[in-house]
Amino acid sequence: MADPRFFSVAGPFTLARLAEVSGAELAPGTDPATEFFDVAPLDRAGARDVSFLDNRKYTDVFSTSKAGACIVSPELAERAPAGMALLVSRDPYRAYARVAQAFYPSLPPEPGVAPSATVDPSAKLAADCRVEHHAVVGAGAEIGHRCLIGPNAVIGAGVVLGDDCIVGANVTVSHAIIGSRVNLYPGVRIGQDGFGFAMGPQGHLKVPQLGRVVIGDDVEVGANTTIDRGAGPDTIIGSGCMIDNLVQIGHNVQMGRGCVIVAQSGISGSSHLGDFVAVGGQAGITGHLRLGTGARVAGQSGVMRDVDPGETVGGSPAVAMKDWLRQSAMLAKMVKKKG
Amino acid sequence: MADPRFFSVAGPFTLARLAEVSGAELAPGTDPATEFFDVAPLDRAGARDVSFLDNRKYTDVFSTSKAGACIVSPELAERAPAGMALLVSRDPYRAYARVAQAFYPSLPPEPGVAPSATVDPSAKLAADCRVEHHAVVGAGAEIGHRCLIGPNAVIGAGVVLGDDCIVGANVTVSHAIIGSRVNLYPGVRIGQDGFGFAMGPQGHLKVPQLGRVVIGDDVEVGANTTIDRGAGPDTIIGSGCMIDNLVQIGHNVQMGRGCVIVAQSGISGSSHLGDFVAVGGQAGITGHLRLGTGARVAGQSGVMRDVDPGETVGGSPAVAMKDWLRQSAMLAKMVKKKG
Amino acid sequence: MADPRFFSVAGPFTLARLAEVSGAELAPGTDPATEFFDVAPLDRAGARDVSFLDNRKYTDVFSTSKAGACIVSPELAERAPAGMALLVSRDPYRAYARVAQAFYPSLPPEPGVAPSATVDPSAKLAADCRVEHHAVVGAGAEIGHRCLIGPNAVIGAGVVLGDDCIVGANVTVSHAIIGSRVNLYPGVRIGQDGFGFAMGPQGHLKVPQLGRVVIGDDVEVGANTTIDRGAGPDTIIGSGCMIDNLVQIGHNVQMGRGCVIVAQSGISGSSHLGDFVAVGGQAGITGHLRLGTGARVAGQSGVMRDVDPGETVGGSPAVAMKDWLRQSAMLAKMVKKKG
Repeated sequence: MADPRFFSVAGPFTLARLAEVSGAELAPGTDPATEFFDVAPLDRAGARDVSFLDNRKYTDVFSTSKAGACIVSPELAERAPAGMALLVSRDPYRAYARVAQAFYPSLPPEPGVAPSATVDPSAKLAADCRVEHHAVVGAGAEIGHRCLIGPNAVIGAGVVLGDDCIVGANVTVSHAIIGSRVNLYPGVRIGQDGFGFAMGPQGHLKVPQLGRVVIGDDVEVGANTTIDRGAGPDTIIGSGCMIDNLVQIGHNVQMGRGCVIVAQSGISGSSHLGDFVAVGGQAGITGHLRLGTGARVAGQSGVMRDVDPGETVGGSPAVAMKDWLRQSAMLAKMVKKKG
Repeated sequence: MADPRFFSVAGPFTLARLAEVSGAELAPGTDPATEFFDVAPLDRAGARDVSFLDNRKYTDVFSTSKAGACIVSPELAERAPAGMALLVSRDPYRAYARVAQAFYPSLPPEPGVAPSATVDPSAKLAADCRVEHHAVVGAGAEIGHRCLIGPNAVIGAGVVLGDDCIVGANVTVSHAIIGSRVNLYPGVRIGQDGFGFAMGPQGHLKVPQLGRVVIGDDVEVGANTTIDRGAGPDTIIGSGCMIDNLVQIGHNVQMGRGCVIVAQSGISGSSHLGDFVAVGGQAGITGHLRLGTGARVAGQSGVMRDVDPGETVGGSPAVAMKDWLRQSAMLAKMVKKKG
Repeated sequence: MADPRFFSVAGPFTLARLAEVSGAELAPGTDPATEFFDVAPLDRAGARDVSFLDNRKYTDVFSTSKAGACIVSPELAERAPAGMALLVSRDPYRAYARVAQAFYPSLPPEPGVAPSATVDPSAKLAADCRVEHHAVVGAGAEIGHRCLIGPNAVIGAGVVLGDDCIVGANVTVSHAIIGSRVNLYPGVRIGQDGFGFAMGPQGHLKVPQLGRVVIGDDVEVGANTTIDRGAGPDTIIGSGCMIDNLVQIGHNVQMGRGCVIVAQSGISGSSHLGDFVAVGGQAGITGHLRLGTGARVAGQSGVMRDVDPGETVGGSPAVAMKDWLRQSAMLAKMVKKKG
């Protein structure tokens, strides 16, 4: 059970309701009226909990789990211990997400502006927003319905936020137009100057950064991630992108829909990513490149050339994934021979 | 045109004035009295805008641009579309920087201390500074003319800032002596303890960090970058250094003038960089090394030895750049043969 | 001498007292009653200062140092200049840590809650804590004795802190149970959602993150480091861990006692580290791995497999350290032959 100091659980829900919510199917012989009270990991779940199995690595844990019910793929269902109710799904993780969201729903914030917050009189704030302690909302900012502005967050002048956004504690946003259902985690920095200057032995000369950051809907931006505003064009983050912690996104970058950018990776200025591009942790993409739709970049790669749609690359400098795996295998073999 | 919610444009300016400001020369047959109203990227500029071409990659965009005027190098001038006024410069990006600064000048902040800010009575603050909402200025701090202390920024006790500095929102500075025209982007952390402790199986023992961070003039420090104070010696950042986002600079590091440190790179404790050293993105430099004046480190490199003045290195572990390129090419070739 | 704007020095102390404090032995012929007034680096120390030599690289500086006393290993003692008093120790850095702590002791904060801070009435705060300007302490939080909550820090609802903790400026903590003597540097983010969602072409579906962050005693977490809370299990940081700046620790990670994690490294979700694991700077560890007690990971490595207790690995993908060194040497040689 999730720690009640931090979480409130809804429910209980019958198996029938959980099947409906998740799109999973009840295994034959299961009583759809059985009630469940919570979700829990396989190794900690009890008779009244629903769990899930998504990674084959944990099949043994599954086989000895005391969970009352479990979401599982058809292939692994037969490994279930006796007496466990099964919710069978081709995508158990997605089904679990729905079930967990039912038990732990996201609720809109309680409306109100903390007396210690500073909201400029010219800002337009929907009446059902919540602005926490010591937050600052600048002149002319526009903030949609049911937004939560966390404590000590700073929303700069003119910034636009859609509906149902969460701006975490100690976040800074400036020069940005942001859609709905966007979640900025604590410490995110959006809209500061890009790294643009004319280098020279007589001193580096700053170039005014005149673009914005434009973010679509349903985007998450991880803790302490930085997204610079454009130099002239905008920096654009498409709808549905998931960006992890400590990521750097340079000026003029354009990302399509549904990209997934894992922690500590960096995308240099003016590179364009198509839809559903996936970038592994600590990978780097140099500037002015194009990565096609569905391109995939392995963790720690250094991408220095365009990547075709659907192509997977790895290594530094990054090459086709199969070539990178061969390089690694070949090096390992050569060292062994010598050894 | 830059979004007026975020930017105010000055001007208009005649071509003669822009030539003077930028050091560029007007191409023959151009009317120096023509007025221009803004800067814009090549693909969005119109008849009243000035644009620039700095990267050969965008020559085609240049050739079809509708910009009324463009800053361009002598070599590429002939690729201009008919009717475009040309400002010819050997360094078009630097010339553009001057023109853009004319249209979008940096203005000193409007003086004043927000009522919600907390300035210690013993701090010395020039009367023309601006201190934003909920910022904190500690005991004995000294802040020069026309500084801007952003919302929720924290300036620790005894910190010294010169003139015309910008401290971004949610920045933390302690134990630091900082020059003039220094710009700390949102979320920067300066002056915290370095990573210094005596390791041991009975527990790691913290070593008091007794130095400072000393920063020269005309330095930029990118968002969420961290600069630790010295352990006994100071951590020193020379004048004119440009440091990007999410960079880590360890205790006792010394950087000369005009160094350029790209995002997510890290410089470990006690390493010394000469003047105008350039470090690529996600590169790492281990501790106690010396990088000579003008040394260059490729992105994602791992530098584990001293680097000579003017030398360029790449790879992890880093070797001379030409050797790294050969290694990469050789590996690619060997894999192909086998394939 | 440390800058008095930032540091207050205790003392003076006799050599006898410093030997006692540090466990070092006075070299024969040294007067134990001589008083010393400060610590200083070898190249800046004077007759009344104590210095130390820990790195052979600086032996020449040692031999010409004007320090009145120096902590040194038995092997290097003979390289001392004439007249220098010697404190001889098998672990000079640890002995120096003790001496420096004597001169610069950590003092408990002056109790008090700044009027601009916001402490929820239901929070339990020991009377001897200090809460700085604009800090926020949420509902039901419990904070032990002598804690310092820095300016603009945000402690979320229900968070528990033990005794003698330091929460730096602009820190954010939520969903966390934290031990005693824990030091969170400025900009640390603890307890935000892990990077958990079910990917899919119809959109990525967020998975509620229902665990916590549990931190032991005597832990340091560096500036702008991010530690995500567990997805269901907790994220666990063992007692005595030292975590540097800009580190990413994913959900469900478990770290044993005394681990050392250098700057900008990342540990992906659900990986388990034993006791005293050391991870070099900018290294990455993929998810669901196990690193045994005393395992060591070289800087910039990419670990994609389990690591045995005591094993050292390097490279990306990481292999046994000796194999990585061989790979690097072999590549260097091959390139030279061709050249």
